[in-house]
Amino acid sequence: MEERKKKKCWVQFQPSGLKIEVPAGTVLLEAAHKAGIYLSSICGGDGYCGKCKVIIDEGQFQGRPTSLLTPDEIQGNVVLACQTKVLSDMTVTVPKSHALDAGQILMDTDARRFKELAGEVRAGVFEFDPLIQKFCVEMSPPTVQDNTADHERLYLAIREQIDAPIMQTGFRILQKLSRQLSEAGYKVAVTIGRRGGTTEVIEVEPGRRCEINFAVAVDLGTTTVVAHLMDLTNATTIDTEATYNSQINFGEDYIRRIIYAEQNNAFDEMQNRIVHDVNDLIVTLATRQRIDLQDITGIVCAGNTAMVHFLLNLDPTRIRREPYIASVSFVPPIRAAEAGVQINKRGLLYCLPSIAAYVGSDIVAGVLTTRIYTKKRISLFIDIGTNGEVVLGNRDWLVCASSSAGPAFEGSGVRHGMRAGAGAIEKLTILADGSIEFKTIGDTHPAGICGSGLLDTIAELFVNGIIDRTGRFKITDDPRFAEADEGWQFQLVPASNEHQQIVITQADINNLIRSKAGVFAAIRVLMDSTQTKPEDIDAIYVAGGFGNFLNVQQAVTVGMLPDVPLEKIQFVGNTSIAGAKTVLLSRKALETAKKIAEGMTYFDLMSHPGYMDEFVRANFLPHTDLSLFPSVTSVKYEA
Amino acid sequence: MEERKKKKCWVQFQPSGLKIEVPAGTVLLEAAHKAGIYLSSICGGDGYCGKCKVIIDEGQFQGRPTSLLTPDEIQGNVVLACQTKVLSDMTVTVPKSHALDAGQILMDTDARRFKELAGEVRAGVFEFDPLIQKFCVEMSPPTVQDNTADHERLYLAIREQIDAPIMQTGFRILQKLSRQLSEAGYKVAVTIGRRGGTTEVIEVEPGRRCEINFAVAVDLGTTTVVAHLMDLTNATTIDTEATYNSQINFGEDYIRRIIYAEQNNAFDEMQNRIVHDVNDLIVTLATRQRIDLQDITGIVCAGNTAMVHFLLNLDPTRIRREPYIASVSFVPPIRAAEAGVQINKRGLLYCLPSIAAYVGSDIVAGVLTTRIYTKKRISLFIDIGTNGEVVLGNRDWLVCASSSAGPAFEGSGVRHGMRAGAGAIEKLTILADGSIEFKTIGDTHPAGICGSGLLDTIAELFVNGIIDRTGRFKITDDPRFAEADEGWQFQLVPASNEHQQIVITQADINNLIRSKAGVFAAIRVLMDSTQTKPEDIDAIYVAGGFGNFLNVQQAVTVGMLPDVPLEKIQFVGNTSIAGAKTVLLSRKALETAKKIAEGMTYFDLMSHPGYMDEFVRANFLPHTDLSLFPSVTSVKYEA
Repeated sequence: MEERKKKKCWVQFQPSGLKIEVPAGTVLLEAAHKAGIYLSSICGGDGYCGKCKVIIDEGQFQGRPTSLLTPDEIQGNVVLACQTKVLSDMTVTVPKSHALDAGQILMDTDARRFKELAGEVRAGVFEFDPLIQKFCVEMSPPTVQDNTADHERLYLAIREQIDAPIMQTGFRILQKLSRQLSEAGYKVAVTIGRRGGTTEVIEVEPGRRCEINFAVAVDLGTTTVVAHLMDLTNATTIDTEATYNSQINFGEDYIRRIIYAEQNNAFDEMQNRIVHDVNDLIVTLATRQRIDLQDITGIVCAGNTAMVHFLLNLDPTRIRREPYIASVSFVPPIRAAEAGVQINKRGLLYCLPSIAAYVGSDIVAGVLTTRIYTKKRISLFIDIGTNGEVVLGNRDWLVCASSSAGPAFEGSGVRHGMRAGAGAIEKLTILADGSIEFKTIGDTHPAGICGSGLLDTIAELFVNGIIDRTGRFKITDDPRFAEADEGWQFQLVPASNEHQQIVITQADINNLIRSKAGVFAAIRVLMDSTQTKPEDIDAIYVAGGFGNFLNVQQAVTVGMLPDVPLEKIQFVGNTSIAGAKTVLLSRKALETAKKIAEGMTYFDLMSHPGYMDEFVRANFLPHTDLSLFPSVTSVKYEA
Repeated sequence: MEERKKKKCWVQFQPSGLKIEVPAGTVLLEAAHKAGIYLSSICGGDGYCGKCKVIIDEGQFQGRPTSLLTPDEIQGNVVLACQTKVLSDMTVTVPKSHALDAGQILMDTDARRFKELAGEVRAGVFEFDPLIQKFCVEMSPPTVQDNTADHERLYLAIREQIDAPIMQTGFRILQKLSRQLSEAGYKVAVTIGRRGGTTEVIEVEPGRRCEINFAVAVDLGTTTVVAHLMDLTNATTIDTEATYNSQINFGEDYIRRIIYAEQNNAFDEMQNRIVHDVNDLIVTLATRQRIDLQDITGIVCAGNTAMVHFLLNLDPTRIRREPYIASVSFVPPIRAAEAGVQINKRGLLYCLPSIAAYVGSDIVAGVLTTRIYTKKRISLFIDIGTNGEVVLGNRDWLVCASSSAGPAFEGSGVRHGMRAGAGAIEKLTILADGSIEFKTIGDTHPAGICGSGLLDTIAELFVNGIIDRTGRFKITDDPRFAEADEGWQFQLVPASNEHQQIVITQADINNLIRSKAGVFAAIRVLMDSTQTKPEDIDAIYVAGGFGNFLNVQQAVTVGMLPDVPLEKIQFVGNTSIAGAKTVLLSRKALETAKKIAEGMTYFDLMSHPGYMDEFVRANFLPHTDLSLFPSVTSVKYEA
């Protein structure tokens, strides 16, 4: 078909009703992306994850052969959107499992929870000394006898109020300064921002709008983006909001997204997506709180290294290639507008420092928040999200590693896995009679299983003898066992008239065990390298995507966490946003974050001689070496 | 006449032949400006200086009555361009006296002279440590074991070569950094700029172009703009160039230009003019030396406060209004491109600090160059240009003032006054027989008299008894005396067939005496205020627009300079450009300039109780108090 006469086709997606016109021959996944429709896709469009299933209701299409669709599905016009080309106008139904509605998801609860966290600053750990400050400055007007120029007059007045040995002022501010000062009778509101060792005058306003100064702290997650709106005059959190990362269309993990961006030269698009998400959050918060965007003068971001690179359109390609390095670990403050972030046009954007390509500033935020860098005794910090990062250490040393175990606990690679959204099973127990009791988020009919539910499932299947120590099903005549083409599966929730059954497959279990094994092996490498014994560990902090209800007991039972007394384990939620807030409110906290990042030793597990052994040994429930899990071996049916 | 049917007229200017189309009714001075023609204008178009005379060769025009034209001139179709409206196509001749041709003027010699000045840096006074530096940086490429991010890797490597505790890098540089380093095999040329307490990475280039780094030093004069092209790798001056300040169309002194800009909202136009002049100089230098503009990475400017404000489009309006203050005295380094200066697009523009509205960074440059701030004994520094600034002091204290005596020694307000260009009388002697001997620049027929010639003229008229101590003509039967409507005049050069006579009028003499009196009164105020006696003064440095041939004896004779032994007086030429060069080549020199500016006490003469008295007393030749000029009172005919 020649380019110039390529016809246009309308594609309508249901149930949203969103329509888009695309040239004939467009891949359906791409059409969906363009229409702003979220379709799950782990492989980034390569046709092997089988996640982007949609139903063609009407219209002509051209598909590629795939083994990922059952005959029934093919009959029902189910296709893989990434392997299907649009040939005419068409209507497509997007199955509910794809539907990510930020309004319904756990993040709201999550965000609210951290709204209540007073934060390290209020707790008095760090002095309240925000990165951006606004204050009233009153100068005596110049006279013939006191003829100091306006610019220097302003500096003198600022230095009476704050410590600012090296000051800078942008050219545009300088140009209007003189007129502004004289018109305002030398009474102005000055906004300053801390930039490394210098202090920048970022805004001068006439009059006394000194009590109006806001900023945003953002957690840039691979899956979700969370923003907290802060009042910088009194260090309070005013409102919170969260959304899915709309880059998700290009792959569920960031490595996939980097590959997609490289193959399609889509770095700008990647940046646009994440910046758009951040702007959406900011506009939502500002609108809801009736705040002018011009009064938001700063933004502090924490996130994994790739996400920070995407946000700023820094080159992320070498994150995924040996020697696996970042473009920038200590991102200097920039003008937010330079990255396209819509706050005050001279407002500043800060990123917490990161440690390595696979240990980002979210982890530095976690260390800052849990304060393990201040403690005499050894702590373990684990952030389990799309990857699983681990930090071990105390006030004298810190080591870290990233397990590339994959996002199984976020539901990827698991038949009925899903994120912690409405309908997700977040708790699951097998009762004495073998029946299964569960709780879903929003108490609706179960649509799938989220991280904490998956952890419960593995632990319960194991302690109830439904799977053995290798994770293999002990097949019995229990009618919930069934054998499909892909192997055995076990029904957790039966089908009803309206809903499909929910099962866990042997492949799912294997994925989840690999994932927990990756985390545990990372912990072991760090412990071995630092000669830390389990009894040396004083506290374990678990952060990340498990939702509100992580059952730490189960995390030990499956062998993800070391077998320490349960009271030593604490689920700390989103420490990335907590750290970003702390930094926003205290310059000292940012300095501390830099020291944490500088002082931390990164272990590359892939090149570490002991890691593979540890990983293989951890691919058991709870572990090959039961002596590492004395409390688990005491479970009755293991006797 | 209705706006919409206003007809267009062509105006051609001779001898240049430049043409321009303007709407009927356009003022001829404005048409000339638009055509890029220089017409003298002191009053800025208000019709009272009478300087903008042109001859209408052909065409219809409408003039306003004026007393500034003689009947002969009116007969000869001479008009004031600022009072004449174009009504039809016309041809206009611009008299030679207006013709300022930078190619013929003294600045070339001047510039060449300062090319030979080795400069303070070479002389070892300041360490060679330029504001902008370029050097090769070679890093070991990252490995899995050495996984420092590119940005921090670069910083570490830079810090091995230079002292840079606080570093900054622009966002655009960061974005391309990673790709650039890896493509260049981690061997790059880095350009850094010093910005206050921080060091900015302003350019990273692949490979080893480290020996190619240029910058420009600029003296922003009210009348002339001078640029020196410097090689930053070896501190040499490569080439020099000068041009007239093209703002001159809007008034010969900067106060007039500020008024014009205010009345016509022409601040942007003012900036465009001076930036255009600077760019012209830079392009001329770069072209002549076959240097890529991208390889010019910095520019350092010195000039009066108004001119620096115009260059950067800072608000200059309060320079001319009480309390007479600058917008900015210590202008921070900015990106040159922000001001429209066409060097490397990330190159930096520095301005030397200024002291007050009427004592600019050119004076700081002068103090830096003459090193009076280092000396135990007291020196006097005088810069005579459009204004006359005076600095007195030593290593312990410095005081300064600006005399608003006007630019008489630049030829303004003097019938046959002109700048130091081709045809200007620069030396004049009255021989024993009463005849006059003179020397013109370029040894051509005299077209007028420049500053040094005017000084000679007053001194010679005085010592030969042609004027008395008040400056009044002692009318005799010497046929060179003549009485015109405006009063008496004295012929210096008779008319020939081709050339007009050159005279000096009583008004001219009064103007010149007022001008020298202003300078001397300023000196006296500073001396009195600091209880400095003439014998305390160890050295007098005279800088500025007198050209190469200032006769210091005559400057004492007329009572402009204190009567000290002549060997103590030194003409030092353009110290503004010399200071700019020193600063460009040494960060320490910039620090020193800041300290000079900070430490100097400014005396506002207009509000000083003693100034008017001193001024009146100085309105004599050499002075009311002859005891101040013992060497002059010894002149024979004063006995």
